[in-house]
Amino acid sequence: MSSSSAAPGDGEKARASGGKPPMRDALVAAAFRLFLERGYEQTTVDDIVALAGVGRRSFFRYFPSKEDVVFPDHERCLADMEAFLAAGGEGDEPVARVCDAARLVLRMYAENPAFSVQRYRLTKKVPGLRAYELSVVWRYERALADYLRGRFAGRRDGTLRADVIAAAVVAAHNNALRSWLRSDGQGDAGAAVDHALGYVQSAFGASPVPPAAEGPEDVVVVVSRRGAPLWRVVQEIETTLGRD
Amino acid sequence: MSSSSAAPGDGEKARASGGKPPMRDALVAAAFRLFLERGYEQTTVDDIVALAGVGRRSFFRYFPSKEDVVFPDHERCLADMEAFLAAGGEGDEPVARVCDAARLVLRMYAENPAFSVQRYRLTKKVPGLRAYELSVVWRYERALADYLRGRFAGRRDGTLRADVIAAAVVAAHNNALRSWLRSDGQGDAGAAVDHALGYVQSAFGASPVPPAAEGPEDVVVVVSRRGAPLWRVVQEIETTLGRD
Repeated sequence: MSSSSAAPGDGEKARASGGKPPMRDALVAAAFRLFLERGYEQTTVDDIVALAGVGRRSFFRYFPSKEDVVFPDHERCLADMEAFLAAGGEGDEPVARVCDAARLVLRMYAENPAFSVQRYRLTKKVPGLRAYELSVVWRYERALADYLRGRFAGRRDGTLRADVIAAAVVAAHNNALRSWLRSDGQGDAGAAVDHALGYVQSAFGASPVPPAAEGPEDVVVVVSRRGAPLWRVVQEIETTLGRD
Repeated sequence: MSSSSAAPGDGEKARASGGKPPMRDALVAAAFRLFLERGYEQTTVDDIVALAGVGRRSFFRYFPSKEDVVFPDHERCLADMEAFLAAGGEGDEPVARVCDAARLVLRMYAENPAFSVQRYRLTKKVPGLRAYELSVVWRYERALADYLRGRFAGRRDGTLRADVIAAAVVAAHNNALRSWLRSDGQGDAGAAVDHALGYVQSAFGASPVPPAAEGPEDVVVVVSRRGAPLWRVVQEIETTLGRD
């Protein structure tokens, strides 16, 4: 369930003006204060709403469960990612597009480094949160893969390429993100993610969308041992080109 | 916890002779019969042990929870994968080695197609099992990534390459595995996985560990437009080989 659809009143109004509903922020702040003081398992929803000075129903209007308050921005980020991918055109290079979509996740983390680092430490300690995070990551990966499956539709190995590239993009993004979180949010997270995504683009960037059909720009690739006699190499090329 | 370490008695004896403990098999069979008849959520551990004719303690000797009985072979498979990777030497091409490790998972599924297809359908219907499966997949991916991190230690972008390649291998394997499961276990799962892993090897196979030095088996690759005149191609080869 989207957090915005669960808050149709002032929440939507705040979204429209670019801000966030203050009650929602207050609940997140109260929750993290208690998680850090007492531990995640030892904190109940009742404790959180008591500290925030609101009722239980207000909590569940914004968050389906206690786990969701730990990741308050993922639903919005996932919706932003899907909208970004849907807004793309046929002219976009597919791998570059999913890399740009992954950068939206990084931006969410980098907007608030202190909060992101706190959450990273909390998630590492609580197995239930780690499982929740895996399911969130899986949803990002599916969004990227679904987009690529659409772009590669009808091509040979289209779904295979889509799934592999989506997984590679997510792994590269998370490798750079985790390094940044482990360094307590120091350094340039954007540059690290750009570098990591560049590696994926170098592996997959051009190949997934092959040229349409054989034409005058069709190439011949000949692989030969360096020690092979020249006449043997020429014979191989002639055979390949059908000119013998 | 490993299922075999939890069953130090007749379980270990059966393992040693290549079989499986009969009580463990009986519990899995009873569980799946009830899951299919009543649904997963509606089946309790008490129902399972009653049908299998054993006590509750016997169930928990083999399975830490009800979820674990759905995936009875993953702990063994993960241990096999880690042992296989640890047994490798410096001469193994790292990407080929993790592809071979992934094939161990496929083999586990292909050993018992009917059971694997039943479980696939059950897992798709029950969100809790889907989350459990994601955590299992994550552990396989970490095992592959840890091996690659060791092999790429000291190389530029070693951990990045390791994480990306491990994710790509898992995604390729799962793409082929899911196609096979959706087809009710028809067709050659091994060939489909080989094809999928071949795609990953073509993207990453050679680059992460460059060859030691140029030698007599060094190859020359010439890429030429098909329409190019033959004399031009020969000239290019001569230049490349340094024989002009």
